[in-house]
Amino acid sequence: MKRIGILTSGGDSPGMNCAIRAAVRTALSIGWEVIGVHRGYSGLINEEFQKLDSKAVSGILQFGGTILQTARSKEFFLEEGRRKAVNIIKKNGIDALVIIGGNGSLTGALKLHELGVTTVGIPGSIDNDLYGTDMAIGVDTALNTIVQAVDKIKDTATSHERAFIIEVMGRESGYLALMSAMASGAEFAIVPEVPYDIKAIAEKLRKRYEERRSNSIIIVAEGATSAYQIEKELRDEIGFETRVTVLGHIQRGGSPSVFDRLLASQFGYYAIDFLNRGGSGKMVGLVKDEIVFTPFQEAISKVRPIKKELLSVMELLGT
Amino acid sequence: MKRIGILTSGGDSPGMNCAIRAAVRTALSIGWEVIGVHRGYSGLINEEFQKLDSKAVSGILQFGGTILQTARSKEFFLEEGRRKAVNIIKKNGIDALVIIGGNGSLTGALKLHELGVTTVGIPGSIDNDLYGTDMAIGVDTALNTIVQAVDKIKDTATSHERAFIIEVMGRESGYLALMSAMASGAEFAIVPEVPYDIKAIAEKLRKRYEERRSNSIIIVAEGATSAYQIEKELRDEIGFETRVTVLGHIQRGGSPSVFDRLLASQFGYYAIDFLNRGGSGKMVGLVKDEIVFTPFQEAISKVRPIKKELLSVMELLGT
Amino acid sequence: MKRIGILTSGGDSPGMNCAIRAAVRTALSIGWEVIGVHRGYSGLINEEFQKLDSKAVSGILQFGGTILQTARSKEFFLEEGRRKAVNIIKKNGIDALVIIGGNGSLTGALKLHELGVTTVGIPGSIDNDLYGTDMAIGVDTALNTIVQAVDKIKDTATSHERAFIIEVMGRESGYLALMSAMASGAEFAIVPEVPYDIKAIAEKLRKRYEERRSNSIIIVAEGATSAYQIEKELRDEIGFETRVTVLGHIQRGGSPSVFDRLLASQFGYYAIDFLNRGGSGKMVGLVKDEIVFTPFQEAISKVRPIKKELLSVMELLGT
Amino acid sequence: MKRIGILTSGGDSPGMNCAIRAAVRTALSIGWEVIGVHRGYSGLINEEFQKLDSKAVSGILQFGGTILQTARSKEFFLEEGRRKAVNIIKKNGIDALVIIGGNGSLTGALKLHELGVTTVGIPGSIDNDLYGTDMAIGVDTALNTIVQAVDKIKDTATSHERAFIIEVMGRESGYLALMSAMASGAEFAIVPEVPYDIKAIAEKLRKRYEERRSNSIIIVAEGATSAYQIEKELRDEIGFETRVTVLGHIQRGGSPSVFDRLLASQFGYYAIDFLNRGGSGKMVGLVKDEIVFTPFQEAISKVRPIKKELLSVMELLGT
Repeated sequence: MKRIGILTSGGDSPGMNCAIRAAVRTALSIGWEVIGVHRGYSGLINEEFQKLDSKAVSGILQFGGTILQTARSKEFFLEEGRRKAVNIIKKNGIDALVIIGGNGSLTGALKLHELGVTTVGIPGSIDNDLYGTDMAIGVDTALNTIVQAVDKIKDTATSHERAFIIEVMGRESGYLALMSAMASGAEFAIVPEVPYDIKAIAEKLRKRYEERRSNSIIIVAEGATSAYQIEKELRDEIGFETRVTVLGHIQRGGSPSVFDRLLASQFGYYAIDFLNRGGSGKMVGLVKDEIVFTPFQEAISKVRPIKKELLSVMELLGT
Repeated sequence: MKRIGILTSGGDSPGMNCAIRAAVRTALSIGWEVIGVHRGYSGLINEEFQKLDSKAVSGILQFGGTILQTARSKEFFLEEGRRKAVNIIKKNGIDALVIIGGNGSLTGALKLHELGVTTVGIPGSIDNDLYGTDMAIGVDTALNTIVQAVDKIKDTATSHERAFIIEVMGRESGYLALMSAMASGAEFAIVPEVPYDIKAIAEKLRKRYEERRSNSIIIVAEGATSAYQIEKELRDEIGFETRVTVLGHIQRGGSPSVFDRLLASQFGYYAIDFLNRGGSGKMVGLVKDEIVFTPFQEAISKVRPIKKELLSVMELLGT
Repeated sequence: MKRIGILTSGGDSPGMNCAIRAAVRTALSIGWEVIGVHRGYSGLINEEFQKLDSKAVSGILQFGGTILQTARSKEFFLEEGRRKAVNIIKKNGIDALVIIGGNGSLTGALKLHELGVTTVGIPGSIDNDLYGTDMAIGVDTALNTIVQAVDKIKDTATSHERAFIIEVMGRESGYLALMSAMASGAEFAIVPEVPYDIKAIAEKLRKRYEERRSNSIIIVAEGATSAYQIEKELRDEIGFETRVTVLGHIQRGGSPSVFDRLLASQFGYYAIDFLNRGGSGKMVGLVKDEIVFTPFQEAISKVRPIKKELLSVMELLGT
Repeated sequence: MKRIGILTSGGDSPGMNCAIRAAVRTALSIGWEVIGVHRGYSGLINEEFQKLDSKAVSGILQFGGTILQTARSKEFFLEEGRRKAVNIIKKNGIDALVIIGGNGSLTGALKLHELGVTTVGIPGSIDNDLYGTDMAIGVDTALNTIVQAVDKIKDTATSHERAFIIEVMGRESGYLALMSAMASGAEFAIVPEVPYDIKAIAEKLRKRYEERRSNSIIIVAEGATSAYQIEKELRDEIGFETRVTVLGHIQRGGSPSVFDRLLASQFGYYAIDFLNRGGSGKMVGLVKDEIVFTPFQEAISKVRPIKKELLSVMELLGT
């Protein structure tokens, strides 16, 4: 093998640059040539290519976002666009693709794999909803960003003795909501995996209020419902006044945490190692502290469950 | 003078604990007794008092919020409530009050002053809208919180080549919006002091888009309009797609910055010094790097202007 | 079981307060009484006891250090002191002890266990040298503190094109040095587990210097040698000028990271669960993402190895 | 005027990139051409020039260090080297130089000014020892870095009830030591401007120890003495055991604080404005919240005093 391409696709996540750096330098170390593809699948179709040497990925480790940028491609969604991509890949003599991203990105990787392109995937996704890895790149950083924000809001919650509802990312998975609730000492977490009982929440809030502990924190995964919906339910139906904060886009950026830098660096290294051993069609992952490879089909179709027992541990500790 | 009370009122701001600590220890050092009043004017009326010694304010310097807590008091808004407060003050032998807070809190301080209570005010307010001080306690920390959030969003804006609209605090004043825009390298700031021209903004966005620099940041003060309104105007009328983030309550908390710790510590020290020299009815402030005292009436009725020339400097630098 | 004691011993580490909070609230939830023992084994012997209710551990989750404080006890090192401790435990009707700390603390726990005291250990140690857990409480936070410091030093290293030698904690283990080197993109890590070759390091530095890439970072574990020794060897023997920073005590404190908060919370919960199931004489740990219990004897006598293959991955990526 | 050069010299400080960006974009906005000079005066002599357009300074605002790099030049110290520099400046048609740096850098600027080169200086120096500005670029960021480090060490100091001696930068000035002591709630600050009394310090430590408040913090400016010297004096002469941390190079880097970004942006803007109005031979500064210009001779020869009254305020509050 001689010449590989590397791209980032879908939502950016902190650590993507570490994965790029690691993949590029590992590939260079075994004599391969590396082409950086800008703007994901869109850039692949438009041949937005840049040859990457070791210096091109120097000093990027500590930065959020992705130096290769990312984009959504309508064209690539269609059969025709993907055939065009395959032709571009062949025309440019690219022997394999390293694809860094979430569910949608790996679905694209699967399609290319099925069309005969050698591919390896690296999971980069804030939500941590990918099957085949305990942690995706960016999750740990996002969690720390969320919890630092909740710590700040707790200063006000405690000073004003108020309840706050904080909405965090997580369309399919309550991972961020559950873990940030546990780590910030929140009283409640509302996740897509478990139906919530607004009357039970209100009852506990009332009890806390009577004990003069009115500074509660409720963390809501966007995939479960919206923070404003919970605010409305608590106010209209039960008469509780709460404050709402939607953390939004601040969860996605920032300098990657050590965990994400280490995870992404190893993913980049082992993804190239996988290609070098003749592999294709799989995503690298970390399961129970070991590097594993999962077929794209499985990674995108199966659901990574949250540990539901932690929900009750969290509520017990947040008492 | 012998016995003073100290309270925090209105929205909490980072550094209030430094001001409490400094006022308490300075008062103790000249032989005074200090009563901490919990929950602002509400706690004053309800006699929620706690004697404060040096140890009671130990190890609080680095924490956001206020150990004395804060609350809004409907009762104190009324003449009768305030008379009740004056009686409580007399009954408890309190010779003077130190009041830490924003516009509403100092309005209360003025009322007490007019009713014959010896008072001194310390400006604590995220918005920096108080006349009589270049900076209120908490402003510098809030600015750093905002700019760190914008830095994170810029990672995504750059990676996805998108425009983001970010709403920050500031009901009467565009200070936070203007300064955070300048410090984060934003392209636009929308402030209450200056009418905005959506067509001019759209035109610049379009020009940047054509130059393939579509990663713009627009910062909006809540007092000017809402980020969603700007998003709607850019989308409906001109066809631009942007993303919105409302920073909300995260702007209020957090460990105070060095600037806020130093400012608050000096305000606490000089507020007691002012009482000790027989003063009353004024707010301590920092104007052109010097400690000054401004009558409450002036501090709450005059408007602290922003430096409008910085708006054009900001836009020039954000080109 | 009815009444348990909890203490922290040895060097403090971020997350200890989370473990205390979790253990206390879990014990209370099953109807137990909890005694906080101040100042470790020293306080145990001196009966520095405080009954802990749920509120006593409220709002401590986010703070470094330990609310129970810690101390070294010469008396407890001696047979006589330990017998005294056992008598105190009996006298106070304490049925079991939760001991949070590192190697020395767990050695003490083993001794008490051998004297018939029911005990469970929770690993809290910056160095991550304890056998029986992949991560001890505080390691992730310390790593992030180190890497943020190295990021700052890299700004200067890059601006001045200089080589810096940074000494980090780790008496027996090179874990912190290796992982922080990998996560910060350092060029070299010097660890106790592997002899270093100063001539090879100098040769690489020289090569980088010739390529005008003189901004190198060398991370040294204190257990391998001192940063000043490496500086001397590079200067005296080979003529290279470098700068030295010993990170020292800043590595130990700070608000715990999300990982440490989650780890410590679970350790606290499962330690009580272990006692509740009749266990004693073991340390809770996380191995391959599962909660496990390791006999004290094993935890303190076996050596947790670093993954040496990561040393070459790190050097490859830092090329 | 048509063509200007810009360089950074001496120790790097956070915010230098903001000043570069602001100066470049302001100059471009009035139609000037800008040459970035790499590696300070050394690069000036060696003609390490790069034309800077608006995009060259895009996305650098938030990074520590300096994209133009910096170096010490032995050649420029000599008359001959400076004449060579003047010839290079003439040969390249450079009409004016913007010089960003500390005392040594501005001494160089003065020499060039005396040789007929049009120059303007921007104060960038961690130590805040320059006369003619209340704050130099980087000081606020360095202070926050120091205080965050002290906050971490206080976790351990409190947990272990120990005294820590922390050495910070400041060769000529005790500004960093005094302000960081006040902002971190330290008990003592040792500064070059005031002789220290080791017996008085020891006496207070002893008193605190007797009151069981042994967790003291002593901050030492490197220009006063070394932390190890204080440690030795307290141990040898009086028997107190303390811990030492020398913060070192971590004080110099990091993402600039909002204050530094605003200060540096305005310095860059007004430095160009000064040149545009025909000025030369002066340093821009902020004095009492106003932009002022001070002749190089004055800026480098006069001493910026610390506010000594704050030393007693700090000690009073740290009681």
